[in-house]
Amino acid sequence: MTDRASSPVPPRDAVADIEQGQTFQPKFDKDGLIAAIVTDAETGTVLMFAWMNAEALRLSLETGIAHFWSRSRARLWRKGEESGNTLAIQEARVDCDQDAIWLRVSVAGKGVACHTGAVSCFYRTLSLGAGRPIRLERNDP
Amino acid sequence: MTDRASSPVPPRDAVADIEQGQTFQPKFDKDGLIAAIVTDAETGTVLMFAWMNAEALRLSLETGIAHFWSRSRARLWRKGEESGNTLAIQEARVDCDQDAIWLRVSVAGKGVACHTGAVSCFYRTLSLGAGRPIRLERNDP
Repeated sequence: MTDRASSPVPPRDAVADIEQGQTFQPKFDKDGLIAAIVTDAETGTVLMFAWMNAEALRLSLETGIAHFWSRSRARLWRKGEESGNTLAIQEARVDCDQDAIWLRVSVAGKGVACHTGAVSCFYRTLSLGAGRPIRLERNDP
Repeated sequence: MTDRASSPVPPRDAVADIEQGQTFQPKFDKDGLIAAIVTDAETGTVLMFAWMNAEALRLSLETGIAHFWSRSRARLWRKGEESGNTLAIQEARVDCDQDAIWLRVSVAGKGVACHTGAVSCFYRTLSLGAGRPIRLERNDP
């Protein structure tokens, strides 16, 4: 039995290692996915939100081109593979508990990230305040 | 049986309504949660990623102060309720398929969003390229 109190190098617990360590320990959910936020590296606009499985994450980091897991199509998806609007990763980040990825990207092709043709998927604002019903307004970021 | 082709007002299908309509139809996952991306309204930095249930979403939009669902504590969570670092919502957006929310906020209190004391939870970058293992580097955005 180790005497933790008298150890010259106190053991790091799991949380400290995950939050402060240099080892990548991505936390996939029960479906094997991790959340990915994509922003424009120049403007900072949030372009899209998607999911990665382990393979999509590996390919994204190795190739520098964003890959995701399409839940609707249940397959690996290189974003822009059909439209040409691929996402070149300028920087990749992970959050404190390593269950979300933030990619700062440059959009190739037509420069739009949304399948609707909008630059960003977040092209509508929500009304704030207690008034009902909540309304959406087209208002590209 | 309706003759869609000859109708003077073609019925909108569900996808068009969700993507282009003005009605808020948030899509909660099987756990009753929707993803929420939080950025600094001034700098554009991604501060954190969290989850909302219907109640957290309602309270956020009605009060203008960000509320989330804490999965680890299994309870409603007004961000900053203990630290004082509450998030005042300047703008709320929803994405094309209405399964993710983007909040642009001003952070009160000490101005930090992460429980570790960092301004952003995304304080580490990931190494890109084929080199193994992937390393994390402290590099606040």
